[in-house]
Amino acid sequence: MGKLLIVGTVAFDAIETPFGKTDKILGGAATFIGLAASQFNVNSAIVSVVGDDMPQEYLDILSGKGIDLSGLEIVKGGKTFYWKGKYHNDLNARDTLITELNTLADFNPIVPNDYRNSEVVMLGNLHPNIQISVINQMTKRPNLIVLDTMNFWMDNALQELLEAIKMIDVLTINDEEARQLTNEHSLVKAAEEIQKMGPKYVVIKKGEHGALLFCKDNVFYAPALPLEEVFDPTGAGDTFAGGFSGYLAATGNTSFNSIKNAVIHGSNLASFCVERFGTERMQDLEKAEVSKRLHQFKALTQFEIELQ
Amino acid sequence: MGKLLIVGTVAFDAIETPFGKTDKILGGAATFIGLAASQFNVNSAIVSVVGDDMPQEYLDILSGKGIDLSGLEIVKGGKTFYWKGKYHNDLNARDTLITELNTLADFNPIVPNDYRNSEVVMLGNLHPNIQISVINQMTKRPNLIVLDTMNFWMDNALQELLEAIKMIDVLTINDEEARQLTNEHSLVKAAEEIQKMGPKYVVIKKGEHGALLFCKDNVFYAPALPLEEVFDPTGAGDTFAGGFSGYLAATGNTSFNSIKNAVIHGSNLASFCVERFGTERMQDLEKAEVSKRLHQFKALTQFEIELQ
Repeated sequence: MGKLLIVGTVAFDAIETPFGKTDKILGGAATFIGLAASQFNVNSAIVSVVGDDMPQEYLDILSGKGIDLSGLEIVKGGKTFYWKGKYHNDLNARDTLITELNTLADFNPIVPNDYRNSEVVMLGNLHPNIQISVINQMTKRPNLIVLDTMNFWMDNALQELLEAIKMIDVLTINDEEARQLTNEHSLVKAAEEIQKMGPKYVVIKKGEHGALLFCKDNVFYAPALPLEEVFDPTGAGDTFAGGFSGYLAATGNTSFNSIKNAVIHGSNLASFCVERFGTERMQDLEKAEVSKRLHQFKALTQFEIELQ
Repeated sequence: MGKLLIVGTVAFDAIETPFGKTDKILGGAATFIGLAASQFNVNSAIVSVVGDDMPQEYLDILSGKGIDLSGLEIVKGGKTFYWKGKYHNDLNARDTLITELNTLADFNPIVPNDYRNSEVVMLGNLHPNIQISVINQMTKRPNLIVLDTMNFWMDNALQELLEAIKMIDVLTINDEEARQLTNEHSLVKAAEEIQKMGPKYVVIKKGEHGALLFCKDNVFYAPALPLEEVFDPTGAGDTFAGGFSGYLAATGNTSFNSIKNAVIHGSNLASFCVERFGTERMQDLEKAEVSKRLHQFKALTQFEIELQ
């Protein structure tokens, strides 16, 4: 059983979609990554920070999935990172109404000793300096370092982000961010440019339009499962990253074929995440449901055609 | 060898993209459909109308591909349908600068006797009354009637369009138009509604994001091949329709698996169409190139995953 080290936010989200709204509920990149990764046979740990306003029952959801929280700093008297957002009617865009960094502003990540030799490191979206600090604490080079980021860091910490990207194996990024990072409109060209920056693999996330995996001349595409209803897209990208990195940590295989399968597993799990608010759907997700939907994924994409 | 009857415009297009512009060149739905279908072993005929301003060399391009033009009316002293458009920088939107219906305004389609028993009928985007008239001229029910349409007819001839849709087997339509036709944002729900209107199969075209095929509970997805550069999207949807209907006419098999393959062949051919202005790329397209790219399609989408 491989070790997966997860770095990212554990947070409060308040979400409004055309279908309803929530008060502050459990959210954050590391939360979604951890829940998705727990579908696989991995030992995983989260490195993050919260205030003591974070209810124990929320933390119990994570430890109940076997996730090691010894690297989760709880700041006495501190407040947890809080994000409030409202989705547009088509769910393809959202407005951020509130962002309170709180304890995250001074976060100094400490990787638990047991996880400094993790095979896979999943760096959720955070300041690139935090991501670099975690890599530097590893006592041996992980088999695979995966980094997720967003346009905010390109606008505000580009040099640090480029430094972090140099150190990793897989960059996961959305289509518009890939274009911003490289000044290339074509995603094929953007992925080529990103590979020159360091990562061997580039995963471009296109939301409801699926995900593309690039490695040298190889391209692989996984669609998003067409759903009757998308209820709340929050956490879909992180769930993808959790399925992706969890699968790879469980198998210990980082060949291109294995990475392809990781993209499928990530897409498959993300299709559940969006069916309910926040982490609700992921908390009780059964292995049998996941397996059934994998069959749907296969039917959705596989064909037999006579090639010459 | 099956017979494919193609109905649609043979036209002049003038195109401007960020990469350049053309004067009046050969265009039109039937033109692109015919060129794509000529990649398969089919007898095909175009039913359309042009003015005598249409150069013989343009018509020779079509007849040179073995396309029967006996159903192409040439109106003496008439002018050919003309469309001029300009694409936005991201190529995902375009402005129509000129639309001159000309001879198309009074078009009364006459299906050649030899093609009234065609196995497959491909009704390109035209007034639904023209599409209905063609269906009514068939002496035996075709194995498959495919209809392509656009939002213009929903706005201006909805009742006639719904009448046409009742008579067909496959509707090809883009995502926004599927939403407009059904008032459903979810494409899954939109496809369900469209099936209730008549067609057994619904193909929803998503441009650079690929195409979805729906039939009852079955869903199949074909991506668009990620390209370094899209040069001119004009005709991509019609090329898809031509590959789709040409393959089905050639095989004579309309099972779900065969329709899946038709979606792949259509997507594969459309990936060539956009590489040059207008019909340029499709005119000299070699079977070996098509076959090579089918291998790329397979590599792009096929995976081996252990299912339980």
